[in-house]
Amino acid sequence: MNHKNAPIGVFDSGVGGLTVAREIMRQIPNEKIVYFGDTARVPYGSKSKETVTRYSRQIVRFLQTQQVKAIVVACNTASAYALDEIEKEVDIPMIGVVKPGAKVAAETTVNGKIGVIGTEGTIGSNIYPRYIKEINPKVSVVGKACPLFTPLVEEGLLQDPVTDEIAKRYLAELIDIGIDTLILGCTHYPLIRSTLGRIVGEKVNLVNPAYETARELKELLVAENMLNDEETKLGDNKYRFFVSDGAEKFKHFANSIIKYGILSAKTIHIEEYEAQV
Amino acid sequence: MNHKNAPIGVFDSGVGGLTVAREIMRQIPNEKIVYFGDTARVPYGSKSKETVTRYSRQIVRFLQTQQVKAIVVACNTASAYALDEIEKEVDIPMIGVVKPGAKVAAETTVNGKIGVIGTEGTIGSNIYPRYIKEINPKVSVVGKACPLFTPLVEEGLLQDPVTDEIAKRYLAELIDIGIDTLILGCTHYPLIRSTLGRIVGEKVNLVNPAYETARELKELLVAENMLNDEETKLGDNKYRFFVSDGAEKFKHFANSIIKYGILSAKTIHIEEYEAQV
Repeated sequence: MNHKNAPIGVFDSGVGGLTVAREIMRQIPNEKIVYFGDTARVPYGSKSKETVTRYSRQIVRFLQTQQVKAIVVACNTASAYALDEIEKEVDIPMIGVVKPGAKVAAETTVNGKIGVIGTEGTIGSNIYPRYIKEINPKVSVVGKACPLFTPLVEEGLLQDPVTDEIAKRYLAELIDIGIDTLILGCTHYPLIRSTLGRIVGEKVNLVNPAYETARELKELLVAENMLNDEETKLGDNKYRFFVSDGAEKFKHFANSIIKYGILSAKTIHIEEYEAQV
Repeated sequence: MNHKNAPIGVFDSGVGGLTVAREIMRQIPNEKIVYFGDTARVPYGSKSKETVTRYSRQIVRFLQTQQVKAIVVACNTASAYALDEIEKEVDIPMIGVVKPGAKVAAETTVNGKIGVIGTEGTIGSNIYPRYIKEINPKVSVVGKACPLFTPLVEEGLLQDPVTDEIAKRYLAELIDIGIDTLILGCTHYPLIRSTLGRIVGEKVNLVNPAYETARELKELLVAENMLNDEETKLGDNKYRFFVSDGAEKFKHFANSIIKYGILSAKTIHIEEYEAQV
């Protein structure tokens, strides 16, 4: 177990996990963060369980070399495919974004009809329905893969007729079913939250797993007496960012999401962490 | 130099290069092909030159283990970023998709105004304008990155109002300039050829580098006396497919593009070919 003043490791297939990092910065502002975005191999959503697990394991090895005290899997696909296996291999706490999102959806639905949107991998894994039904077996959960949302977000079409049109198609069957809760099961989706909210209507509660995950992380750190108890300052290596490709481009995107000013992002060869088991 | 009856190696970041493989099958039907699609690390279009070169080099090493007699880089981004460097390292001919497409565009434009569409990497590399101007310094060439086309194609929206709308936006400035030639500078784009053709209008000549590349490959094999002179039969391991992830999904997509029936696709760990220089 690492020291309580060690950083928290956060990783994602690319930039989407920054919405989770942002929530951690908001909710537990005294914590240090080491973020890794696998920008060389993004996206994970269309890849196999085996490949996503192998990539995630390499990233966990890398974060361990940074002496992190806990790891947040800030990617729904990696949480769905790799978390169960990898958390057994490490001696620090790991939390994903799926369970916290599933929990709040299961607890807050009134009519028992929950929709989940995500990548092909996340939806195909059926992980959200499984977790939700463990908590509340009476609800019905319908998943819908939305593979175009991520490229639309990355192209910057956050408020756009095309994004509206695609969202209407993807969400039609969930609206028809009469869901009252929609889980944004991919870390890119909070960035088109207002579009999604408008299309499903204000009666549908949108669940943002990024928010719930940061809350769960805080609870965990409190319960385990692992909160950072030194005063940390911005600029003092408080937030460090690593990527597998395109550090400058990442920095630009990250600065548009996170208000603190990302001082640097460094490119590393992530596959070199393969053998370090 | 490998035997004339050895296969031709063809590679791409994923499935797009199948449009090139298909042209090779059509134009030189007696040749054997070993295809590699880097489906674990797709797409290349938004990645850096360094990363695309490293990945391409691994793939070339793999294809060399398959004793190919020539290599076709069936990916515009890899052709733009990696071909010049890697072709010096191997003792077999390598051809990319950029030069053949650039050549025919330079030779066929009448008004001297050529448009090129492709990934961020291909357009940012400025490789098409450079090659075209080497052949015909008088023409003007305008490039436009179209990052949403590939996800739209992979989502199957080949004939769709959304694809129309996105295409209208991307192509507007090229239409305004009055181009008479448009290079489809990404191997996915021939799959939305009819949409693109309708939007730019029938006076604009569409250049498909896949077609030109297969023609150049044939000329090369004839000139070097390297054409396969044994009779080859389908099913006899004539066309072999390897991917870095998701062999079943690849097979499904490939069978929708190539009419011969892809018997098998095998998943390999491509990064293991890193050190084999």
